[in-house]
Amino acid sequence: MNTPVVIHRGRGIDCFALDQRTFRVRISTERGAYQRVELCYTLNKYTWNEARQTVAIRQWASDDLWDYYQTDVSGKDTRLAYVFILHTRRETFYFSEEGLSRHYAFPQGYCHFFQNPFIHACDVHKVVSWADTAVAYQIFPERFANGLGKKAYVNSAWDSDPTPHALFGGDLPGIEKHLDYLSDLGVNCLYLTPVFPSPSNHKYDVADYETVDTAFGGEAALRSLIDAVHKRNMRVLLDGVFNHCSTLFKPFQDAIRHGKGSAYWDWFFIEGDRVDLKEANYFTFGRVSSMPKLNTGHPEVIKYFCGIGAYWVREYHIDGWRLDVTDELSADFLRAFRKAVKAENPDALIVGEIWQNPASWLRGDQADGVMNYALTKALTDYLVHRTQDAQGTACRLNRLLARTAPQASRMMLNLIGSHDTHRFLTLLKGDKPRLKLAFCLLFFYVGIPCIYYGDEIGMEGGYDPGCRKGFPWEERLWDASLRELVKRLCILKTSGRLAGDEMAIEAFGDILSVKRSGAGLMINAADQPAAAVINGCTHTLEACEYRIDRL
Amino acid sequence: MNTPVVIHRGRGIDCFALDQRTFRVRISTERGAYQRVELCYTLNKYTWNEARQTVAIRQWASDDLWDYYQTDVSGKDTRLAYVFILHTRRETFYFSEEGLSRHYAFPQGYCHFFQNPFIHACDVHKVVSWADTAVAYQIFPERFANGLGKKAYVNSAWDSDPTPHALFGGDLPGIEKHLDYLSDLGVNCLYLTPVFPSPSNHKYDVADYETVDTAFGGEAALRSLIDAVHKRNMRVLLDGVFNHCSTLFKPFQDAIRHGKGSAYWDWFFIEGDRVDLKEANYFTFGRVSSMPKLNTGHPEVIKYFCGIGAYWVREYHIDGWRLDVTDELSADFLRAFRKAVKAENPDALIVGEIWQNPASWLRGDQADGVMNYALTKALTDYLVHRTQDAQGTACRLNRLLARTAPQASRMMLNLIGSHDTHRFLTLLKGDKPRLKLAFCLLFFYVGIPCIYYGDEIGMEGGYDPGCRKGFPWEERLWDASLRELVKRLCILKTSGRLAGDEMAIEAFGDILSVKRSGAGLMINAADQPAAAVINGCTHTLEACEYRIDRL
Repeated sequence: MNTPVVIHRGRGIDCFALDQRTFRVRISTERGAYQRVELCYTLNKYTWNEARQTVAIRQWASDDLWDYYQTDVSGKDTRLAYVFILHTRRETFYFSEEGLSRHYAFPQGYCHFFQNPFIHACDVHKVVSWADTAVAYQIFPERFANGLGKKAYVNSAWDSDPTPHALFGGDLPGIEKHLDYLSDLGVNCLYLTPVFPSPSNHKYDVADYETVDTAFGGEAALRSLIDAVHKRNMRVLLDGVFNHCSTLFKPFQDAIRHGKGSAYWDWFFIEGDRVDLKEANYFTFGRVSSMPKLNTGHPEVIKYFCGIGAYWVREYHIDGWRLDVTDELSADFLRAFRKAVKAENPDALIVGEIWQNPASWLRGDQADGVMNYALTKALTDYLVHRTQDAQGTACRLNRLLARTAPQASRMMLNLIGSHDTHRFLTLLKGDKPRLKLAFCLLFFYVGIPCIYYGDEIGMEGGYDPGCRKGFPWEERLWDASLRELVKRLCILKTSGRLAGDEMAIEAFGDILSVKRSGAGLMINAADQPAAAVINGCTHTLEACEYRIDRL
Repeated sequence: MNTPVVIHRGRGIDCFALDQRTFRVRISTERGAYQRVELCYTLNKYTWNEARQTVAIRQWASDDLWDYYQTDVSGKDTRLAYVFILHTRRETFYFSEEGLSRHYAFPQGYCHFFQNPFIHACDVHKVVSWADTAVAYQIFPERFANGLGKKAYVNSAWDSDPTPHALFGGDLPGIEKHLDYLSDLGVNCLYLTPVFPSPSNHKYDVADYETVDTAFGGEAALRSLIDAVHKRNMRVLLDGVFNHCSTLFKPFQDAIRHGKGSAYWDWFFIEGDRVDLKEANYFTFGRVSSMPKLNTGHPEVIKYFCGIGAYWVREYHIDGWRLDVTDELSADFLRAFRKAVKAENPDALIVGEIWQNPASWLRGDQADGVMNYALTKALTDYLVHRTQDAQGTACRLNRLLARTAPQASRMMLNLIGSHDTHRFLTLLKGDKPRLKLAFCLLFFYVGIPCIYYGDEIGMEGGYDPGCRKGFPWEERLWDASLRELVKRLCILKTSGRLAGDEMAIEAFGDILSVKRSGAGLMINAADQPAAAVINGCTHTLEACEYRIDRL
């Protein structure tokens, strides 16, 4: 090929405002095609002819198709103008808005240079202050611990295999009772699946967004838990289910009662004149007729749920929201919700549930980060299905970073499993050394590692409801070595050694290497048993002052 | 290369909601690499395994690096899931979120397919009802016509060469007086550069956003003009200059008077404690100290100018806004402004001034379209500088379409010149046949053609102030043949034969061919004189029922 392909789509896709003075500029080039890439730029486009300068751009990653380059430029004026200069072994190309060319008339650059003009503070996607040292822990309250004692509604033994409608009796005081355990583990942010009144054990069908389920202890229990958590310098995220609700939610009940005349009719997507619960003549979550879909494009729905979003932040001091089925919420809703929540606390985190490429939700106007299921999938293919080797995995992990804004990457909730997946150890058929590799990668990857309750002690379980067992509180049932590794990883992360978004992932044969500014990791998933070396002090991997384990 | 590169960045970049039921899906593949591209999809992701279907995707364009493919899919449920199947001569590849692969496990597609879930009506970027048949005409009121007669402030003869501070005496009644001329020409949308009180002749330094400059006839003259325009089924766009203002704007005067204590201090970006007009210790438009930059990230500034935006739509029934220096306005402002204006009239058009790639402003939440200077540049390189031949121009024109959402392309203000450029005929050193080619391309390209006043009769003039001459109202000074061509092009456009966003641009040797659904164009810029054939009835270019001219 004479002209190896290049991609740079500019503002918001390949050029980001990191803060009010700094741009990150990225370019992707056909793998192996270019030897050197430079950025010719000026921070005030009006000074192009006097003040432009040329800097080399660092290649920070590759995948199977592309080499990824990026650099940061910063200054007081932020009317950035730029052109790329790309060198193959033999030729030089120029890449501007005009395309790729062998010649570029710099004095006329004004006509064709790329631009990213003027950063307004309100448009900057800010990383919440606590993200870089956060370790999250996801709790399914019905199954974590019982703090209130015997309950009449319980229908299953704590150590039984869960069925879809099983009730074990877990609650919020149970969590509070076990904060010592969580502190000792080293996590500092609890993500609770829904706590609002609901007819189910999972509570993703919410009947009332303004109170806490009495089975979980009611509002007082939540307030007490949050206070106790905050005293330990830990944080709490609640789960906001605004894409759909329970049929018991008052507005839907009103629609059932009054038909098309209901003031809440347009809060839903209902066909005909009456709600037909049997035929489910309304849009739902998935195919679940007990979960009518909310019309989050409707101004009143937006207003109501923005109020809910702000209320729990303002009155209960929660530290953010995880939003269920974020991809089906309207963008209008997400923008308004962000404004409402950040107005109460700019440091509140908003994490979306999005299983696919989340880039369009992560431009600073909607979510801060998402549950990083794309990472889960990559780790699964590498460590479980073994459909991708170290090289393929390095490519894939780099591609995930390359498609996301750097700030958003730092606010991802990275996970190897959740209430919606098989437990990783079960997928691995009990292969604990490989589970340890998964944990190592989880913590070393840019973002907030999120531990699904019990994964750290070796809990097993298949897809829902299997993954929702009761936490076994007898210590003899725990895998001590696994828990010890997770504790060490928590220390590494919460101490700030794995902060920021700088990361180099490469493969050397079967070795997958992850370098962060304050620590390095090498793992070998091909070995039997799998092996990992963690170097906690420097990213020169040869020097291993702080070696956690040979697993 | 074994695996030719492919780009698909999904939602909002390569996958658009055209309306509440329809998605357009695009993919770009390395030029010439693939023989056939297919889309395997289902409109409800939950039915992937039962109901997915495979359709061929049409290659609609190419440029020097890429082949562009696109297709539309539509239905009632809009939780789209899809994977691409790409065929080279010898091999088949699959492209999912996981990347490009030689095998794809369709039953597990759920883990890796691309998704674009659930279209909310409020998030759809709607094409305003009148865009497809609109022809705009840009008027610089100070220079178009004088309707009020002799004025004391005038300092230059109507037919003199303008200087930076020249005052010729044009006004709004002058425009109203010449509506017959504009109707006869066939345009149906007037875009007026600023009409608000201002110390300059161009009025891009606005002192008051709530009234009309008395030199132009005041509010009564604007109301009268708008009424007369509407009676002719024409429309009016005003020019909103919200990035900066005049130093005479009351809030800035207040900041001058009260220094840092002013309630309006934060409406601007001022260093220190006092405004220093001499040193211009504040951000400005460009380097123009008389135009302080407004802080459009400030909530009060946003509120005030959203009020202004709504006011002129509500009270004067203007049909939309052109926004000056849109790229330096905050996204928060642009989103709020859009909501405020569209609440008054959903059919009001919002056109940004953006000279570079406008994609990030055209996602449906900010501008509808922009002044398409990228098209101007392409036409200039082809017809004036001749740095691009027919083939290169076809590539470039296709690339411009490929980078923009289809709806936005239909609301672009396409232009060959404005008050901010040389006149095209002057760039062409008077070569009228080539100017005619430019007009043909302008009208045939997707979007709203916008004629800069007087270009249609062969006015000349260099860069500002040269391009701002007085319109010569003696008909003997007009180029009749040029005007006749423009009239015929106006008929073609306003009759709907050049509607929609379907367009095929190709080069055959020196011939540049543009096919639209209702008309075809072939031009040859290499001929002397340049030649064009317009076929008004069918896109089979061989059949020429309606031939405008061999220029």
